[in-house]
Amino acid sequence: MKSFQGVGVSAGIAIGPVQVLHTANEAVIRRVVEDPQAEVERFRAAQTTAIQQLGVIRDSTAAKLGEGKAELFDTHRLMLRDPEYVSSIEDLIMSSSVNAEFAVNSTMEQFAAMFEAMDNSYMQARASDIRDVSQRVIDILGNRDGNDSTVQGSGHIVAAEDLAPSETVQLDRSAVLGFVTEQGSSNSHTAILARTMGLPVVIGVHKGFESSDTGEMMVVDGSTGTVIIDPDDATLQQYREKQSGFEEHVRLLQKLKGQATRTSTGQTVRLYANIGRPSDVTAVLANDGEGIGLFRSEFLYLESADFPTEEYQFEAYREVAQKMGDRLVVIRTLDIGADKQADYFGLEHEDNPALGYRAIRICLTQPEIFKVQLRALLRASAYGNIAVMFPMITSVSEVREAKGILSQVKSELRAAHVRFNEDIAVGIMIETPASVIMADELAAEVDFFSIGTNDLTQYTLACDRQNPNLGRFADPHSPAVLRMIDMTVKAAHDHGIWCGICGELGADVALTDTFLDMGIDELSVSPKSILPLREAIRKR
Amino acid sequence: MKSFQGVGVSAGIAIGPVQVLHTANEAVIRRVVEDPQAEVERFRAAQTTAIQQLGVIRDSTAAKLGEGKAELFDTHRLMLRDPEYVSSIEDLIMSSSVNAEFAVNSTMEQFAAMFEAMDNSYMQARASDIRDVSQRVIDILGNRDGNDSTVQGSGHIVAAEDLAPSETVQLDRSAVLGFVTEQGSSNSHTAILARTMGLPVVIGVHKGFESSDTGEMMVVDGSTGTVIIDPDDATLQQYREKQSGFEEHVRLLQKLKGQATRTSTGQTVRLYANIGRPSDVTAVLANDGEGIGLFRSEFLYLESADFPTEEYQFEAYREVAQKMGDRLVVIRTLDIGADKQADYFGLEHEDNPALGYRAIRICLTQPEIFKVQLRALLRASAYGNIAVMFPMITSVSEVREAKGILSQVKSELRAAHVRFNEDIAVGIMIETPASVIMADELAAEVDFFSIGTNDLTQYTLACDRQNPNLGRFADPHSPAVLRMIDMTVKAAHDHGIWCGICGELGADVALTDTFLDMGIDELSVSPKSILPLREAIRKR
Repeated sequence: MKSFQGVGVSAGIAIGPVQVLHTANEAVIRRVVEDPQAEVERFRAAQTTAIQQLGVIRDSTAAKLGEGKAELFDTHRLMLRDPEYVSSIEDLIMSSSVNAEFAVNSTMEQFAAMFEAMDNSYMQARASDIRDVSQRVIDILGNRDGNDSTVQGSGHIVAAEDLAPSETVQLDRSAVLGFVTEQGSSNSHTAILARTMGLPVVIGVHKGFESSDTGEMMVVDGSTGTVIIDPDDATLQQYREKQSGFEEHVRLLQKLKGQATRTSTGQTVRLYANIGRPSDVTAVLANDGEGIGLFRSEFLYLESADFPTEEYQFEAYREVAQKMGDRLVVIRTLDIGADKQADYFGLEHEDNPALGYRAIRICLTQPEIFKVQLRALLRASAYGNIAVMFPMITSVSEVREAKGILSQVKSELRAAHVRFNEDIAVGIMIETPASVIMADELAAEVDFFSIGTNDLTQYTLACDRQNPNLGRFADPHSPAVLRMIDMTVKAAHDHGIWCGICGELGADVALTDTFLDMGIDELSVSPKSILPLREAIRKR
Repeated sequence: MKSFQGVGVSAGIAIGPVQVLHTANEAVIRRVVEDPQAEVERFRAAQTTAIQQLGVIRDSTAAKLGEGKAELFDTHRLMLRDPEYVSSIEDLIMSSSVNAEFAVNSTMEQFAAMFEAMDNSYMQARASDIRDVSQRVIDILGNRDGNDSTVQGSGHIVAAEDLAPSETVQLDRSAVLGFVTEQGSSNSHTAILARTMGLPVVIGVHKGFESSDTGEMMVVDGSTGTVIIDPDDATLQQYREKQSGFEEHVRLLQKLKGQATRTSTGQTVRLYANIGRPSDVTAVLANDGEGIGLFRSEFLYLESADFPTEEYQFEAYREVAQKMGDRLVVIRTLDIGADKQADYFGLEHEDNPALGYRAIRICLTQPEIFKVQLRALLRASAYGNIAVMFPMITSVSEVREAKGILSQVKSELRAAHVRFNEDIAVGIMIETPASVIMADELAAEVDFFSIGTNDLTQYTLACDRQNPNLGRFADPHSPAVLRMIDMTVKAAHDHGIWCGICGELGADVALTDTFLDMGIDELSVSPKSILPLREAIRKR
């Protein structure tokens, strides 16, 4: 029996034989070709085949997992047509008379390195996408079908150095029990897809899997990140019990759908969801979210090459509002800056971007950008129950200024006879220490508060949330932060407005009783945390 | 009449004819020499002469302005002997057969650029020192005496593109009324020296001074940064009145020496000084500081090439303690990290250094470094009235851990029969929002609080204090910060300990009444702010 510790990124227990997948990325050999023009043609044929294959994968993913998860493969098809990518490959073949495999591989490494060097986790994750699509082209050039990673038979745990998103999706759901990888990140598409598929996943397992491992018995605990090879009988028994408990728990949670979020003493809390893009609404509805407490509008900005148009934003907001019907959808205005950078904003380098020019500071300084978003939001408010929320507030004057711009936009829409909700609710994030201290005065200005515990903890403890060296100083249950949450709820209630939490702390069931005692009105968490949280609240 | 706006870095009004100094930095021409070895000898002779000249300047500065101000020229002499600097020059002469002037000039530019690129304002300021000493060598090589910048006659205002420290010091005090430069920074040695000399200085005046300006009438307002050339009669009259008022005020302030810092209603506040090195004690005593509320021990680390020894630190702490006699000297333990970097600490790059691994976090993680400082501090405590203060505290457990290490060091000293003050007072900086929120529990652990308003404001408002783009969002009189100061004073008094302010806000006389109403016990400010503050308090 050997035990390895990785990072669990999708909960659940898998027990079964392991199948080690060789990543298809064999060394690509450089050859000199006699007819570079013919080699370019060979590349173009492979590119076309790859695009066709991805179309098939796209459609089957849409059928299996929904349109939202299928969008990725549209992105992959676009990558294969990207003029810079294609001309880099073709130029290399023509100028150096190299084989197409080598040219694709070189271009892949160059583009991936470029993405990996970016100061933006979204763009960094694009590196694995470029590797995925390039590998497919290389496989086709080598007459390999690229499908050798499909596990045959049923009941295997898949282990690999890394898994490309297209490999993950193509695996036969009924045959795979779980995933273990040496590389990967919890934000990778593979991890996200696996969570949607409901399979346990552990990443960062430094085992060095070899073909000879195939067939060994394996236990994967996606909750704790533990992976055990060749477990002894007692261990196996222990995990079989844990597995039954987990599955029973999942079944029980499903029964909580449609149930009220109410304690035994009658206290109710609204359980909302945090989402990042319109396609996430599917998961919100599947997990019985009572509303959306935080719709991060950043994706519209981070995934665009230029400022997103009013129309493009309007469509996204309207889609979410319509799908959620009567339920509240709180849309946070743009929170660009700090670790979320979009080149076209032209933001200057900052020594401490987390303490820098970001979010509402950009909006108040460049109201022309802000007004486009507010117009789109107000127009979408005619199609559902939308509220607007301003981030990074530190003073009453900032709130008044933001509300003033909102009023201007309302007047313009009114003059143009465009429909919108005149009484749209306006709230603010409480995520700076200043906003906690001034909560009494701020409460008089808005309709609700939503506490962003990640940033609030970062500023209160002066600990960058992404700095790996501060673990022992960044207490996630810091008594200072808990006191600040209490102060904020009190100030809100003194002024008759509601107060929620939309940071990660809200999903921590160890704190649910504490938050209930404080009288929190709403908890907005990731969709998968909604039912466990409802269970914790109903148990009280 | 023409008016220019610069930055006032030394208060006061100067009125008189301007003398424009040409900076000696004429274009250095590259020549090929036939005998590089002879050229190296020529450089060495000039180097020796420069070191001798600097010795003379050093001694006359010590006589005029005190040993503290003379230390700079010892540093300059060391620079001229620096093996890397010298070998860069000699290698250039030998390898490229260039003239010594060119080799010195190239090396100067290269070293200055290196200093300027450093992420540390102390090291950046070293760029002007390397230019100063190099220019002296170039002048000597060109048979110029380097003294052509001495103003002849009395009653001139000196204007220049920039002034080297050695030029500033060599000017005849009785002949110069004030300084105006196009370059420079408020932390440059020139600005610091000028403040010591009591002369008004304005930097950053983008005028483009020319010889033809010499003799023009000029008004320099070192308080507002305004510079007026050829003022009309009304303006001249207005500034003459302002000048009399200022001088009268300085005289009145001098009368406050030895007076009590007490309001008309009998409330007293202790007026302490912030210092950065032992030589600053002279200014503290000259301005009647009642103690030292913040001795920043960083200089010991920032100016060393390796960890400063216990003995070296002990001498510095003992010197300050002895000079201050019975008066309290609060020494803050090392606050390295963020914008204060010392290479030998080997700190990793951080995305947000202000929210990073710094100060007490380094000390608790690397207690072997911390213990050296604590041993030096405790040993020095036998020679005066020393208190120790820990920075960047966010929790009770950090304070307990730091006190535990202090106890260990005490035991070791006791066992070794080394004298120290067993009852040394222990305080903490209140500079994170967490420490304000937890002030009631922290007060039970320590003997005093000192509020660091610069960092506290930075974290509370989530605004990097050094980010020039956040001006409108970084309200220095933020109501949130003022409330936090009030909360901290109350918590301290509830637990019977004293509470002071050692940040810049303490010197702001617009807030003195507010602080008095809060019941602040101590204000620690730069030496020159002590008497104006005493005046404001006594007027109440």
